[in-house]
Amino acid sequence: MFGYSGELARLLSGLSVRVGDLLRVESGGRVYEGILMPRTGLGDQSCLVLKLPSGYNVGVRVGRETRITKVGEGEPWKRLPPPPSPPASSKPLVRLVGTGGTIASRVDYRTGGVHPAFSPEELYSLVPELAELARLETVEACSVFSEHMTPELWVRIAEKAAEGLNSGARGVVVAHGTDTMAYTASALSFMLRNLTGPVVLVGAQRSSDRPSTDAHLNLLSAVAVASLSDLGEVCVVMHASTEDDSCLIHRGTRVRKCHTSRRDAFVSINEGPLGVVRGREVRMLGEYRRRGEGRVEVDGRMEPRVLLLKVTPGMGADLLFSALELGYRGIVVEGTGLGHAPEALFPALREARERGVPVVMTSQCLWGRVNLNVYSTGRDLLGMGVIPAEDMLPEVAYVKLMWVLGRTREPEEVRKLMLQNLAGELSPRSPLTSHRPF
Amino acid sequence: MFGYSGELARLLSGLSVRVGDLLRVESGGRVYEGILMPRTGLGDQSCLVLKLPSGYNVGVRVGRETRITKVGEGEPWKRLPPPPSPPASSKPLVRLVGTGGTIASRVDYRTGGVHPAFSPEELYSLVPELAELARLETVEACSVFSEHMTPELWVRIAEKAAEGLNSGARGVVVAHGTDTMAYTASALSFMLRNLTGPVVLVGAQRSSDRPSTDAHLNLLSAVAVASLSDLGEVCVVMHASTEDDSCLIHRGTRVRKCHTSRRDAFVSINEGPLGVVRGREVRMLGEYRRRGEGRVEVDGRMEPRVLLLKVTPGMGADLLFSALELGYRGIVVEGTGLGHAPEALFPALREARERGVPVVMTSQCLWGRVNLNVYSTGRDLLGMGVIPAEDMLPEVAYVKLMWVLGRTREPEEVRKLMLQNLAGELSPRSPLTSHRPF
Repeated sequence: MFGYSGELARLLSGLSVRVGDLLRVESGGRVYEGILMPRTGLGDQSCLVLKLPSGYNVGVRVGRETRITKVGEGEPWKRLPPPPSPPASSKPLVRLVGTGGTIASRVDYRTGGVHPAFSPEELYSLVPELAELARLETVEACSVFSEHMTPELWVRIAEKAAEGLNSGARGVVVAHGTDTMAYTASALSFMLRNLTGPVVLVGAQRSSDRPSTDAHLNLLSAVAVASLSDLGEVCVVMHASTEDDSCLIHRGTRVRKCHTSRRDAFVSINEGPLGVVRGREVRMLGEYRRRGEGRVEVDGRMEPRVLLLKVTPGMGADLLFSALELGYRGIVVEGTGLGHAPEALFPALREARERGVPVVMTSQCLWGRVNLNVYSTGRDLLGMGVIPAEDMLPEVAYVKLMWVLGRTREPEEVRKLMLQNLAGELSPRSPLTSHRPF
Repeated sequence: MFGYSGELARLLSGLSVRVGDLLRVESGGRVYEGILMPRTGLGDQSCLVLKLPSGYNVGVRVGRETRITKVGEGEPWKRLPPPPSPPASSKPLVRLVGTGGTIASRVDYRTGGVHPAFSPEELYSLVPELAELARLETVEACSVFSEHMTPELWVRIAEKAAEGLNSGARGVVVAHGTDTMAYTASALSFMLRNLTGPVVLVGAQRSSDRPSTDAHLNLLSAVAVASLSDLGEVCVVMHASTEDDSCLIHRGTRVRKCHTSRRDAFVSINEGPLGVVRGREVRMLGEYRRRGEGRVEVDGRMEPRVLLLKVTPGMGADLLFSALELGYRGIVVEGTGLGHAPEALFPALREARERGVPVVMTSQCLWGRVNLNVYSTGRDLLGMGVIPAEDMLPEVAYVKLMWVLGRTREPEEVRKLMLQNLAGELSPRSPLTSHRPF
């Protein structure tokens, strides 16, 4: 019975319960109501898997104390349909790069958790409408949850993307877990030079076996941008709202995940989105770089020993001194307000300067621009050689500093590159409005 | 001539320029246009202070290369009016606690920067309408820029607030710089027990000598809440929008500064604001704690050795090991997504557990709720004893952990207090919707 066996199977069968039915389960003082899900044969014999109304799955251990009530009958669970026939050869080629993560996850019915498992090929069979839009080729760059992503894997993804564009793909879609998607989007933005097509990161906040999944619309929209748009930048395409009808195109260096679970968690910060996708209609907004000619280059040299340090009231300098001792090569400070840090940190910031370790200032406000000219603390920091990162997000400054230090450690060169707009990550202040706050 | 002297005074006088006139100054390749401001006699003889259209002041050194053009005539600069006559004794008493920061800053005409200087008494004379609303008493808790605030100063502010309420004040207003106002609001929320009136933190994003200042409306609104509302909580009162017509009341444990410079930078996260203030009308929204009877107590024991650690892709465990070596007593992790951390950190997290150092998980998404039951990484973290902080903001969890560790280091007790709603800082998941994402 879909993986249930032994005593539990007998119990369920005695209650006339089938996979797909709605159950109410009271166990250990908690009450769960959800749809009974199938379970692999290898799972814990006494564990029952429920899909909750939120779409999440939970594994509930069934013991003597557990009360199970059948609340409603449901659609029986179905297997995936087989992949559709391949699209016509006239469709543009789009490369789908797999990395693991939610858009490529399956439920582990043993624990009730979600694991990365679907290959890009399986994803393709999940959304047959993709065949009407593009010819897909699928490659795997890695297979990790996005929270375990590393700078080395960023390079691998960049290489797979460049390889795709250089061998005739009209665009590239990178399926990526949402946790660190924005960091990877930044990294690809700095690494990929002379883009001949869009590189679109896409993910899902709800895994594709859930009724509320955003995976299908997001993937379709991403492939639409990759195949139809003239964008020559790295971007993130995700739900525009909690409605399941449109997606936004965010610049890779301006986007941030701003909700743990909502489908519209991704937000462009300090500029509007690059465009909107509704079905197959891709509408670009504002300024963007067009796809170019020639060959895409990957400049993937990274200095991974960079620290992102969020400052807090009462913090001491000891940890920053430790970081310098440990050999960190660059520090991005997530300061308060316009870009300030507690006085207690000053000795360590001076020490950083003496060691030639650049310190870049951003703001934990996230929105707005740092400005070290307004308050005396800011001026003190400028005096210590701190580099004010304008309206760059802290996470983007972190990735950019890795990339910059991969090229040079010469302080003036680092400063120049950090303050230069390389991939839409910052807008310089104009002289006339040099102190304009927003 | 308002502090200008020597050659510069002669130059300005030759151009028929007076303080208050609009000037265009070209210096060192930059162009500044702004109103000529007065300068103290002690200032740099060759430095001219301009108020830019943004409201910020800038000091421009005038040399041989500098070109000054008078663009328009302005209102001459005026001194503050003398304080109004004291309000009628029938008005409710409100205690104004000064801490330094922007609402109590003055421009330093030597550097063009802003310094904390106004005493609470001077503030009172700035906004005479205050006298129609309340009798003010002013005390000073400290005088620092808010970026230099510390847990010890939080206790001093809490004591001044409690003292005020216990000696007959109807409410307390704490004038605070905006940089770390939200942290202080959290700290006061945990420290002040049995509030018999509102404790209202207020600040300004533009200092009170600027035409675009938000100080006056914010201060008036804060005093309105302190004197007219029946709130018995700590809150932040700041501009509702960029219009200068209303303020929002944010719960002290739910508020965050989300823009470096906008007047409506303060936002309630994961719940709506507690209320709206428009002129003297205070309208409360939603649930809140009413002012109680009896005496306000201060429970200010804090363990300051707490670390807020934002995780990033590629980070190693070395710094966290250092933090444990340095004797940090508690760690708040600002994880990715639903509350994840890179595998590389796991050994240090296990070490923390062995040392009895609690690790609390929050999300750098800021909005939403952590949930360690959805993905295997989350379950691994739960297995390491990590405490999921529900929908608590990272900054609030940081302050709360200091407060909790000020009482107990017993792991189960710490966990229990961290997951208990003490001051509106978290909403527990209900069993039925235990996995509901938002």
